[in-house]
Amino acid sequence: MVDQDELRSRKDADGIALPDALSAHGVQLDSALEARSELEGAAAYLELHIEQGPVLESMDLPLGVVLGTFGVERHQVTFRGQAAHAGSTPMDKRRDALAGVARLELEIREIAKRTGQGAVCTIGSVVTKPGIVTSVVETAECLLDQRHLDRATLASMLQEAKDASQRFAQAEDVEVEWERIWNIEPILFDDGLIELADESIKEVAGSSHRLPSGPLHDAAEVARAGVPTVMLFVQSLRGLSHTKLEDTKPDHLELSVQALDKLVSKTIERVTG
Amino acid sequence: MVDQDELRSRKDADGIALPDALSAHGVQLDSALEARSELEGAAAYLELHIEQGPVLESMDLPLGVVLGTFGVERHQVTFRGQAAHAGSTPMDKRRDALAGVARLELEIREIAKRTGQGAVCTIGSVVTKPGIVTSVVETAECLLDQRHLDRATLASMLQEAKDASQRFAQAEDVEVEWERIWNIEPILFDDGLIELADESIKEVAGSSHRLPSGPLHDAAEVARAGVPTVMLFVQSLRGLSHTKLEDTKPDHLELSVQALDKLVSKTIERVTG
Repeated sequence: MVDQDELRSRKDADGIALPDALSAHGVQLDSALEARSELEGAAAYLELHIEQGPVLESMDLPLGVVLGTFGVERHQVTFRGQAAHAGSTPMDKRRDALAGVARLELEIREIAKRTGQGAVCTIGSVVTKPGIVTSVVETAECLLDQRHLDRATLASMLQEAKDASQRFAQAEDVEVEWERIWNIEPILFDDGLIELADESIKEVAGSSHRLPSGPLHDAAEVARAGVPTVMLFVQSLRGLSHTKLEDTKPDHLELSVQALDKLVSKTIERVTG
Repeated sequence: MVDQDELRSRKDADGIALPDALSAHGVQLDSALEARSELEGAAAYLELHIEQGPVLESMDLPLGVVLGTFGVERHQVTFRGQAAHAGSTPMDKRRDALAGVARLELEIREIAKRTGQGAVCTIGSVVTKPGIVTSVVETAECLLDQRHLDRATLASMLQEAKDASQRFAQAEDVEVEWERIWNIEPILFDDGLIELADESIKEVAGSSHRLPSGPLHDAAEVARAGVPTVMLFVQSLRGLSHTKLEDTKPDHLELSVQALDKLVSKTIERVTG
C-alpha cells in the first residue's frame, strides 16, 4: 500500500503533483480516506465488464463469472550505463543500458512460461536516454508488470526477474535499480455471490464458466475493503483490449445486461430476505 | 543523398517543418545549394577535433592524424505488433513489438563482433507505443546506426541486420519496416595533407598515429565536395563523448593547437609554393 507522503510527491508527465491534479477534479487528498464511510452498510458490489481477454471467445461462451483478480507486481526497472559516441566507442568498451532491458524483455517471457497457470509478465514501456542515434544508451527505464492468482508464485516470479536483471547488469557492466510502482495481492471474490452469478448466467445464456481476471478492476479494491463482491465478464472479440479494435457483439452485450439484472435481483433478495 | 522533396517533408519533434526551422535561422532551403560557390578556390580544409574515442589514450599519445571517416548507415526500424491487455492476454497469444527490438538490439552486437575491423552498431533510441504498463507494446521504433570504413563491408552489415529483423518479426508474429534516415559512404582524406599532418604532429609531440574516425565530421562533407581535407585528433579522456564527462587534458589541447598551427603553415607553403 502506498503511503500518503509518497502519493504527495508523485508527479505526472507534465510535472503536476498528484494532490494538485486531484484537487483540480474536486478531490482533496487529505480528506480522501473519509470516503471510506460510504462503504458502511454496503451489502454487495456487483460489476459487469468485458473480459479483455480471449478465454470466453475460445470456449464460444458469451458470459463468465469472475473468481477474483490476479495479484500484480508493478515495477520501474532502470538500467544505467554510460553514454558514449556511437561511432567512436568500440563494442567491447560499451556500457549499454539498452542491452539490460533487451535481455530482461526476453527473460520475463521465459519466467512466465516456466511459471504457467496463467502467469503473465509484460514490459509495456521503454524510455531511452539520451535517446539519440549517435550515442550508446546511458539510461534505459522500463515498466514491468507481473501477474498471478497465487501470492507465493507471484512473489517467486518477481524474485526471478530481479535475479535475472542483476545477472544481466553484471554481464553488461551496467547498474540496475528497481522501484515498486504499485502492487496488489490476489483478491478472491465472494463465494455466495459467485454462486448467484453462475445461476444468473445459466438462466440467460444456458451455460457459464468460472475464470480469474488478469486485468485489475475497481471490484478488487472494493472487495479488499471488505464488501462482498463478484463480477460478470462478457466475451471480448479476438481477446483484444486497450486498442481501437476492442469490441463485443451486441447480442452478448444484451445477454450481459440481462444476467446482471438477474444477479442484482437475486442479491437483493438474499440480502433482504 | 536525400532529395529536396524529402527534406521539405521532414518535421521535428514539435511538428515544425525543416524549411521553416531553417528559415527561422536565416537559411532558405531553395537557395541553400548556392552556398556551393563558397567552395570555389578552396585549396584545403583542415580540422582539429577531440577523438571522442579511446584509441589515442590507450596508446598514450596526445595526437593523431585522421585517415578518413567511417561510412554510416542510419535507419529507423519499426516493429508493429498488437496492443493487448497486460493482464488478460496469455503469453502465447501476444504479438509483442518490443520483443523484435530486444532481439535486434542483441543481434547487432553480434553482427559488429563478427565483422570486426572497428565495425560498430548501435541502437540509440527506442520508443514504445502505447507505452503504458498495462499493455503489450504495439509499436516499437528504434534508431539503428552502423559504421565501417569499407563500403562493401558496411553494406553487408546492413543486410545482416535486415535479414535478422525479418527472422525476428516472423518468430514474434509482428511486422517490421525499415526507413533509411541518412547514410554516407566512407570518405578518405587527402594523402598529401595526411603526410603534412603527420609531420606536424611529430614536430610538436614526438610521435604520431594514423587512425580512422568512427564519428562523422563536417570535414567528411567538405572532402566529399572535392576539397582536399585532413583532420587532427587530440586525445579524449576515458574515450568518452556526448556526455558531461567528456574531457581532454589542457597540455594536450595546447599541443593540438601548436600542431594545427604547423599544419596550416605547411599547407599554405605547399599551396602557394
